Amino acid sequence: MPQLPHHEHHLTSSAALQDIVIGLSDGLTVPFALAAGLSGAVQSSGLVITAGLAEIVAGSIAMGLGGYLAGRTEVDHYAAELAREHEEVRTVPTTERREVQELFVEMGLSEATATQATNELVQDPAQWVKFMMKYELGLEEPDPKQAPKSALTIAGAYAVGGLLPLSAYFATATPQAGLLWSAVSTLVCLLVFGYFKSRLTGQAPVAGALKMAATGAAAAGAAFYVARLVQGS
Amino acid sequence: MPQLPHHEHHLTSSAALQDIVIGLSDGLTVPFALAAGLSGAVQSSGLVITAGLAEIVAGSIAMGLGGYLAGRTEVDHYAAELAREHEEVRTVPTTERREVQELFVEMGLSEATATQATNELVQDPAQWVKFMMKYELGLEEPDPKQAPKSALTIAGAYAVGGLLPLSAYFATATPQAGLLWSAVSTLVCLLVFGYFKSRLTGQAPVAGALKMAATGAAAAGAAFYVARLVQGS
Repeated sequence: MPQLPHHEHHLTSSAALQDIVIGLSDGLTVPFALAAGLSGAVQSSGLVITAGLAEIVAGSIAMGLGGYLAGRTEVDHYAAELAREHEEVRTVPTTERREVQELFVEMGLSEATATQATNELVQDPAQWVKFMMKYELGLEEPDPKQAPKSALTIAGAYAVGGLLPLSAYFATATPQAGLLWSAVSTLVCLLVFGYFKSRLTGQAPVAGALKMAATGAAAAGAAFYVARLVQGS
Repeated sequence: MPQLPHHEHHLTSSAALQDIVIGLSDGLTVPFALAAGLSGAVQSSGLVITAGLAEIVAGSIAMGLGGYLAGRTEVDHYAAELAREHEEVRTVPTTERREVQELFVEMGLSEATATQATNELVQDPAQWVKFMMKYELGLEEPDPKQAPKSALTIAGAYAVGGLLPLSAYFATATPQAGLLWSAVSTLVCLLVFGYFKSRLTGQAPVAGALKMAATGAAAAGAAFYVARLVQGS
């Protein structure tokens, strides 16, 4: 049989690109929707801009700092579980051995082959612990430098995504005119962003573009309706 | 050697609890920070409440609908990869076999045992494909009913988390008084929430409580400063 070229079909987008997608997804929708909501309720573009900028700052910090702390927690969690597996391999090796054996049987091996594989694996405690971390606990070793990088990328992408819909209010006289330009430019950006995000993750790009724009429109429409209702009451 | 009782130390919190944590983490910080920011810039509690409610609606929909669409995409992605692995096992079995072999060697088995294990695994194409999905691609079969449930839980938790800091502005006469009560009650909630969230994920609870409160305070402080700067300019 001829060996066809075989490409791995993992989702191989880089961590930075994934962080940009996370930040932009929320940054393009929430500040846009908030500004749209306020446009139906207040008379001053200045107020829409003040609230929009406050939201962008709040959202960037909450997402960025939250992401940073979550990343640090993941590093600590991995280190704690690693120490625990080392300890268990040392103190309850029979139990840990049986777990390896069970994992191999679950993969689809016969008892005899699973036993043979287990006997080989436990010769090297480092490899044994690595196996338990990855296949029993499903944990990959996190990169400690990733957390601060991710935090800055997500926060930056959120801010960029949020400033775009807001910039329309700088350039127009009334919140209503701002809303029109903000909605047009943001929906175009959501379509373009949804298209490329879907291509990146191997999904149908046109459907992805429409879903992204629909999410933004739904959030903005609901915020507009609620703000008008509250202000009118 | 005596067999000590051995507890699995996975993070075994339920999916619903995880969704509540996701929604509350953002819901308790972003609307609180936005309201705090506006309190330094506007004279009317009504405006703070209007903007806060618009943000809660926008954020709930963006998070909920975004989570729902992401969940649907994951289900589609799994189905597409599954079909692809079935196809590959049928059309390029030699290549796929070699990949299984390489995975076993990477786990720490000798070439001989890896070959034996591979020979057993490929007897059953269903088990073979399952093995490739889980250990080559790292994909677990997603539950198609999970996406709508997650969406509603995250959106609901975000709204509950956001309404708490905002409720202080309903009960007070000026935004400044609202901010005081909002900050006190929200920081208490962030401490309690951070404490239980950390216990749930096996982290140090007091440190977790302080980190959560610090994130909320940083976001609110920055939003307050920016809103005042913008409104004063």
